[in-house]
Amino acid sequence: MIVNNNIKEIQSLMKDIKKQGKTIGIVPTMGALHAGHMSLVKKAKENCDFIFVSVFVNPTQFGEGEDFDKYPRTLQADLDKCEEEGVDLVFTPTNEIMYGEGYSTYIEALNISQILEGAVRPIHFRGVCTVCTKLFNISMADYGFFGQKDYQQVAVLKKMVRELNAPIELVMCPIIRDTDNLALSSRNVYLSPEERARALFINQGLFAAKEAFDKGEKDINVLRKILTDTILKGKPDHVDYIDIFDRNTLEKAKDVNNAVILIAAKYGSTRLIDNMEL
Amino acid sequence: MIVNNNIKEIQSLMKDIKKQGKTIGIVPTMGALHAGHMSLVKKAKENCDFIFVSVFVNPTQFGEGEDFDKYPRTLQADLDKCEEEGVDLVFTPTNEIMYGEGYSTYIEALNISQILEGAVRPIHFRGVCTVCTKLFNISMADYGFFGQKDYQQVAVLKKMVRELNAPIELVMCPIIRDTDNLALSSRNVYLSPEERARALFINQGLFAAKEAFDKGEKDINVLRKILTDTILKGKPDHVDYIDIFDRNTLEKAKDVNNAVILIAAKYGSTRLIDNMEL
Repeated sequence: MIVNNNIKEIQSLMKDIKKQGKTIGIVPTMGALHAGHMSLVKKAKENCDFIFVSVFVNPTQFGEGEDFDKYPRTLQADLDKCEEEGVDLVFTPTNEIMYGEGYSTYIEALNISQILEGAVRPIHFRGVCTVCTKLFNISMADYGFFGQKDYQQVAVLKKMVRELNAPIELVMCPIIRDTDNLALSSRNVYLSPEERARALFINQGLFAAKEAFDKGEKDINVLRKILTDTILKGKPDHVDYIDIFDRNTLEKAKDVNNAVILIAAKYGSTRLIDNMEL
Repeated sequence: MIVNNNIKEIQSLMKDIKKQGKTIGIVPTMGALHAGHMSLVKKAKENCDFIFVSVFVNPTQFGEGEDFDKYPRTLQADLDKCEEEGVDLVFTPTNEIMYGEGYSTYIEALNISQILEGAVRPIHFRGVCTVCTKLFNISMADYGFFGQKDYQQVAVLKKMVRELNAPIELVMCPIIRDTDNLALSSRNVYLSPEERARALFINQGLFAAKEAFDKGEKDINVLRKILTDTILKGKPDHVDYIDIFDRNTLEKAKDVNNAVILIAAKYGSTRLIDNMEL
């Protein structure tokens, strides 16, 4: 496994890989790798010849007062997991390498990136779009693998790729849940046992609404009530949104066709997101 | 010569070209092709195996009240010139193809794109960066050829390419001047003979300052005075800037090291730009 952070060297290598007719898959991560990330790596391996993983806690997607400084960094463990899973290359740049002196180029995907997560975290998707474009260019990947857990992120990035005609196809992979059904997240380590117990009502709400839907309940207001009532039993310390949205526009859904439940709430100071398509 | 505006078809074709180990050169244009554009095509042919020319009057780089509607459109003549020069593919998209319903992804190269041309035309470089990124992605070009006439444009795009790690190298090609030394521009057709006669003082000013510099004059204030006095003899109807700048930052130069003269002025309602490196 190659571990490198020299962009010119990597681009030269990736050019060679492409000349050999191999397909390249990228799994962009901020490290603190868990089974969710590794499921993306596995999916990439099923579909591509060369697996490129990036480990970079991207400063431009964190706003003031967010958890950039305390975000878990576990590089050696991450490298071990990548090696074990048969990753071909891990790119581990510093901030200086990614954003040198006087850096000023940013990509904005307006509209869809300004609601929900974008409303709470105004510069978040600008940072995500910018870093992903850089990573796509550095890896020269044919396919990019992203987790459904960050549902809006996938929607924003797919729109960006389509609109900029970027020569890459993005693949959304299922959410991986822990044994207690909490969606895996690098931020789960912040939760106290008491907070985690309350947070478990998130997936209970998701599953309850989905179950009702599958059993024939198509009234969106009834489903909203099941969802919200269940989650509020966990007494979240703050709710950003618990609602049902249109999968394409991420606007509030008027009916259950093509709908997705999206949730963002805080337990203690830890902000969790989760979702489920109906 | 292929003439096509189907992005998916072109990207599939360009992938094949790359697999054959050929290098691709792109010359992005807004059409109304003149000898300046054709010098870029010639330079591309010297350096690349496959020559991709785009002809697209890009709406996102024109502001309110600018000349988008009246910008000269001469597609058949442009195609004839490309054919004659041995261009391999001409991409001639519509606005709808480039910016579909709900389009919202834009690239901003801040700082350097907010001064000079950017100060007068606030959304101009956002449009240029966005359309060029799309064209680079569609053409999959290894090299992009741009005229020195749009000096700041080249500086902004080079910064964007470097900062986004785009796998393309940009080449700046010399200004081509008419027999009377006016820099070639598709907008010159707007000039009345009287306006054109006054505009000729632009290149007289440039050449006078350059000649003084070459003969040993290194006092930037003396050079500024030669430049400005000469150009003002042509009584421009409006001056945006006539000055000497640092080539890298495009900030006002303190001395003549690494300097470039940049000019933007109006004759009648026609805005002209020109420049010369010292």
